[in-house]
Amino acid sequence: MSASTSSPLRLGIAGLGTVGAGVIKLLETNKDLITARAGRALQVVAVSARNRTQDRGVSLEGLRWYDNAIDLAADPEVDVVVELIGGAEGPARALVEAALAAGKAVVTANKALIALHGAALAQSSAANTAPLLYEAAVAGGIPAIKTVREGLAADRLLRIGGILNGTCNYILTVMRETGKDFATVLADAQKLGYAEADPSTDIDGWDAAHKLAILAGLAFGRPVAFESVHVEGIRHIGAADLDFARKLGYRIKLLGLARMGDAGLEARVTPCLVPEDAPIAQVDGVFNAVVAEGAFAGRLMIEGRGAGEGPTATAVTADLIDIARGNTIPVWGVQSATTEVLRACPLSAGKGAFYLRLRVEDRPGVIADITAVLRDCGVSLRSMLQPTPVRNETAPHVPLILVTHQTSEAAMQDAVARIDTLSVVADTPVVIRIETD
Amino acid sequence: MSASTSSPLRLGIAGLGTVGAGVIKLLETNKDLITARAGRALQVVAVSARNRTQDRGVSLEGLRWYDNAIDLAADPEVDVVVELIGGAEGPARALVEAALAAGKAVVTANKALIALHGAALAQSSAANTAPLLYEAAVAGGIPAIKTVREGLAADRLLRIGGILNGTCNYILTVMRETGKDFATVLADAQKLGYAEADPSTDIDGWDAAHKLAILAGLAFGRPVAFESVHVEGIRHIGAADLDFARKLGYRIKLLGLARMGDAGLEARVTPCLVPEDAPIAQVDGVFNAVVAEGAFAGRLMIEGRGAGEGPTATAVTADLIDIARGNTIPVWGVQSATTEVLRACPLSAGKGAFYLRLRVEDRPGVIADITAVLRDCGVSLRSMLQPTPVRNETAPHVPLILVTHQTSEAAMQDAVARIDTLSVVADTPVVIRIETD
Repeated sequence: MSASTSSPLRLGIAGLGTVGAGVIKLLETNKDLITARAGRALQVVAVSARNRTQDRGVSLEGLRWYDNAIDLAADPEVDVVVELIGGAEGPARALVEAALAAGKAVVTANKALIALHGAALAQSSAANTAPLLYEAAVAGGIPAIKTVREGLAADRLLRIGGILNGTCNYILTVMRETGKDFATVLADAQKLGYAEADPSTDIDGWDAAHKLAILAGLAFGRPVAFESVHVEGIRHIGAADLDFARKLGYRIKLLGLARMGDAGLEARVTPCLVPEDAPIAQVDGVFNAVVAEGAFAGRLMIEGRGAGEGPTATAVTADLIDIARGNTIPVWGVQSATTEVLRACPLSAGKGAFYLRLRVEDRPGVIADITAVLRDCGVSLRSMLQPTPVRNETAPHVPLILVTHQTSEAAMQDAVARIDTLSVVADTPVVIRIETD
Repeated sequence: MSASTSSPLRLGIAGLGTVGAGVIKLLETNKDLITARAGRALQVVAVSARNRTQDRGVSLEGLRWYDNAIDLAADPEVDVVVELIGGAEGPARALVEAALAAGKAVVTANKALIALHGAALAQSSAANTAPLLYEAAVAGGIPAIKTVREGLAADRLLRIGGILNGTCNYILTVMRETGKDFATVLADAQKLGYAEADPSTDIDGWDAAHKLAILAGLAFGRPVAFESVHVEGIRHIGAADLDFARKLGYRIKLLGLARMGDAGLEARVTPCLVPEDAPIAQVDGVFNAVVAEGAFAGRLMIEGRGAGEGPTATAVTADLIDIARGNTIPVWGVQSATTEVLRACPLSAGKGAFYLRLRVEDRPGVIADITAVLRDCGVSLRSMLQPTPVRNETAPHVPLILVTHQTSEAAMQDAVARIDTLSVVADTPVVIRIETD
């Protein structure tokens, strides 16, 4: 129990975008409640942003202004630096490094920074006895970091992951509900503000991969080498896949999943078919879900908002309250900071069951040719779906959907490569993993 | 960041039932991992239970044995007392009071104790600077306490609650899936060990009410007067209700819900109809779910195991790791302990929508008589369901299901009392709340 103290915790906030302004609003709106819970006042004393005159809907009166964020690290009246600039390099990284070196506590919402530089930052945090907290970096409105780092601290985690990107989940949900194709739904999502003008960080899986690497590092007690995480996005998912998945009793979700398998750490972000009655299949729209499974605790799923001003500001401020209370934890949840990162094993070392969508010539013998390749590669078929073809002289190919039993990833990659060379197969095969447990 | 220390945290465990033995197993199995996360070893040094010779599947060799649990509080070599005896009074209460008075940290899984005596215990905890942690008291495998007390510490909570009793959820799930009646499913659950020989603590709602009172106290920053919580169980729910609910697009769950309304705190445990596509409707079997809604963070749902050796032992040990790390929080989440409890307002002060199942005489004019009563009481009907009657000379009554719009609780109580007196109505009306948001 931290000793009650009357001196406020003094904050310097770098970055006054949606989240930065949100934190200032939240601290003002819930001032009494936050002071009661923190045991002392949380007071913003300094800020830094690019544009001094922009209207952000919050008053900056009486706050010291810095044009260069890094100057916050040198301000002797700032106890905690709140980094909300974003980006794995540049001013965000420089500020966090400088603040830790100066012995200041840091709170950040920067998932790329923690995913890419978390090993070195943990060292600096430990060496300077300067806490580094980052609850807002993973699924803003879901206290996922706290749950893994503290709630499940007694348990050996078997796996961690979930629906970690709201933009992808929104797009896949709307595609399923409307039957529209990816490009159309993406364009609509951009108009509605659910997707960025440059959407690639989200839809190519990078944002989810940053979050997964952080969760896996916490779950397994060591920072994960980000470049070893396998990353796929959702650009190749067609409206037809959502329709076929439904006919087979599945939904399609972009999942980040990490587990400690026989070959070591498996960590990947991929679209997956999940059974339509599984809890994670019910998590729709911009919502996120984090699933953790412990050897003793069993499975846990937390569902909530993953982004947005309110949820992210709540996560940042919860970290600030922990610091005010004197309750902080080493960056990767274990006392001894290590630079030895954990590398995920290659995807080909794993196993899985797969959905395979092909476009094939509509003539006798084709199915036999394809299933022979799978058999030769040691891939066992569980079911097949061939929609009644709409005969069309100008499009003589028809869809063929194959579902495999559990098989080795390497065998499946081999089989798909061979099938892709068959002359009866048009287009690149679409392969989607099936996650049933 | 707590200073690393090499001295172990010494534990005295009172109660060696399933959970107590589970904690010893967990500490042994995950010893290295727990030491790394806690920054020091967690070492059981003393135990107390009723029967010294019983085989519990764990070794008690080298541990001091106390016949009287309260002696653990006086052992100078015990740093933390772990109370796993259970019960709001008797040896459990005496031990926790004595340990706090002796300045020892206490970890307990005892929901009745915290729900009934949490105000006084919080005072003692603060006065003696002795932390009292109780994560295992609410939904073992779900870190609900930590989520509310810390993860959502920056937010003003609008409501808290969920599916807080696994036995009731299991019974309602099996009733829905099999069409069997309550008594049959309860008897089966007792044979399978999912319900106690004396099931009333679970099925009459008391267990859920203890958990709800604790969650509400944390959410609103003051202990809740337990006797002010409205408690209903599930004995009166018939197989017919589950069937009619399904026809209307709902499922039935026993929910504990607390919210801060216009009239003050609303806190009640009641069976509820929830829309069949709502996330909470998907939580089946022995699983629990905690829902929290914050003004900034939005809605959050955590689903996981609510009971059992592994989940509960994980929660107890997570509290022990927090103590070892030096990270503890005042009992009700705010620095100033208060004896001033929060009283829930009477149920009649609230509003709600309702499902009403009647058995009525199968003759013209009956429906008009009943709807006239509702109209006279100011209760507006949203829909009505009258299954095609199976005509039967010996049972001239047929079911009639009415669904109301949002109305005042007082008006509904008045209407039901009047309907109950009508000669055309057989049996006591079954009233179930509808929770749509």
